Amino acid sequence: MADTVLIYSRFPKAMMARIAQRFELIDAAGKPPADSFNAEQLAGVRALITAGGQPLGRDVLDTLPALGAIICYGTGYDGVDLKAAADRAIVVGNSPAANASAVADLAMTLLLAVTRRLLPADAYVRSGGWAQAQPSPLLRPPRGLPGRRIGVYGMGEIGRKIAARAAVFETEVAYHSRSRHGVPYPYYPSLAALVEWCDVLMIAVRAGADTQHIIDAAMLRRLGADGTLINISRGSVIDQAALLAALTDNAIAGAGLDVFEVEPHAPDALSALPNVVLTPHIGGHTQEAHVAMQDCVIENLASFFDGRPLPYAVK
Amino acid sequence: MADTVLIYSRFPKAMMARIAQRFELIDAAGKPPADSFNAEQLAGVRALITAGGQPLGRDVLDTLPALGAIICYGTGYDGVDLKAAADRAIVVGNSPAANASAVADLAMTLLLAVTRRLLPADAYVRSGGWAQAQPSPLLRPPRGLPGRRIGVYGMGEIGRKIAARAAVFETEVAYHSRSRHGVPYPYYPSLAALVEWCDVLMIAVRAGADTQHIIDAAMLRRLGADGTLINISRGSVIDQAALLAALTDNAIAGAGLDVFEVEPHAPDALSALPNVVLTPHIGGHTQEAHVAMQDCVIENLASFFDGRPLPYAVK
Repeated sequence: MADTVLIYSRFPKAMMARIAQRFELIDAAGKPPADSFNAEQLAGVRALITAGGQPLGRDVLDTLPALGAIICYGTGYDGVDLKAAADRAIVVGNSPAANASAVADLAMTLLLAVTRRLLPADAYVRSGGWAQAQPSPLLRPPRGLPGRRIGVYGMGEIGRKIAARAAVFETEVAYHSRSRHGVPYPYYPSLAALVEWCDVLMIAVRAGADTQHIIDAAMLRRLGADGTLINISRGSVIDQAALLAALTDNAIAGAGLDVFEVEPHAPDALSALPNVVLTPHIGGHTQEAHVAMQDCVIENLASFFDGRPLPYAVK
Repeated sequence: MADTVLIYSRFPKAMMARIAQRFELIDAAGKPPADSFNAEQLAGVRALITAGGQPLGRDVLDTLPALGAIICYGTGYDGVDLKAAADRAIVVGNSPAANASAVADLAMTLLLAVTRRLLPADAYVRSGGWAQAQPSPLLRPPRGLPGRRIGVYGMGEIGRKIAARAAVFETEVAYHSRSRHGVPYPYYPSLAALVEWCDVLMIAVRAGADTQHIIDAAMLRRLGADGTLINISRGSVIDQAALLAALTDNAIAGAGLDVFEVEPHAPDALSALPNVVLTPHIGGHTQEAHVAMQDCVIENLASFFDGRPLPYAVK
């Protein structure tokens, strides 16, 4: 049986180039594999590479009888039906922490851009509004970062790096996660209490059924009219309709979003708002992060095909 | 003689509101004071408030025979003819460090936005390009911040705060200034050597005749095709025509600019570039920074009218 690896999600070719040097790849490009390949081809697939957020359930696994490994490109694996995989003794791997710095940097980019109203500021210069001394209500002096209370939700590698970065901007940092960590920030045992306390909520929690829409209308009211929401985790964590309403009604001040409920798609109503910064899920999208994620994918695949345990296994 | 204070530069009314509660203000709004006020009124002016970058020379001082204090709103005083002031024993004050955190935060905002191509990324989402999976050459994975060499030019309060912020992003930081400081970063005794070494040049130097156009075509070639330039100091430090050519020819990778040679004005050719982020001199423009700068102005004026030395005097 050849070492055939199915590319399950839609990835740019360049991201797979290093992996293609080591393994025989067949590319389903985000469609159901049975749409592109016949039963014989699918029967030769022993491993697949997926973007962890894309749904990958029992129905797809049933079309891949020889599958033994699901390798997520990136940190997340929320789309993978872990129970269905376990029932078939399919191992699941990811790229833990490989993109943590890049994602934390983007979280700070979004926070700073929202705080300092970077998009309206740049537009004011480019449009000639500055040269013509036009009134610029969007550019009234904003509150700066020093002294702000930054609540980090989730204290994995990404949450830690966000907290370290945010703290150097002369802010107060606190966090909530399922359990207390050995980090130098106050711990809030409930998310509601953290959100009540903070001015800025940075979402860095691992997505899953337990966090689905955990940021809802009530939580946004707790964040308050001076509050800012940053999400670089998964769109599913936020009730996007409630967020849209809160931003429209100025129930919160602004948001920076790299992830959305249905990707690749940000609702038109969100795109029309001036108090948001929107990026197309590029948190882990740097040259170094891609190389690090590819290293994890390659090591996971090599170990699997050698019959060894995955070095980067999802527990 | 009343405590009349002339507002020399053009400031939004809101910025002067707290000062107006303490002092009698008359507003020249950026025009020569003699255009707005008669000789008797000008003879009553014992102090003025200026934006430190605006030219304030002997010709203007000659129209203010009773002037005893020039108070700069902000850190800079590069526009003030210090020799002419000294000849008349006019004291000069500023607001040192009052806006340092805000300016350093904007420097980081610009660096992160340029590095992660925030403007094209947001435009890609809002335009629907992402939803339609359009090719996005501007959004190819960029180099991230970790591992980059950050050169800080100038090690005053703002330079120190930029260095501390940049270091937490897992970068290497080094600096050049006229003299070595007690900071934990390598010192380069020449600017050229620092620029040769670094990938990112952050300009935080005090502007003056000695720094006029110090960043010229040769210095930009040293920065190199992968180099990024951030300026939150003064436009005069950079030869703007040379910068425009370097950005157009990809002799450097990108720039984030809060200051320009002639303000309020960014050349159209600069505004047309995709690899720049431009802001309308908003470095110190946060609520907290304005309050801190106003505190310095008020304390300087109160001391001057009481016949005491300025607490925040330019040396």
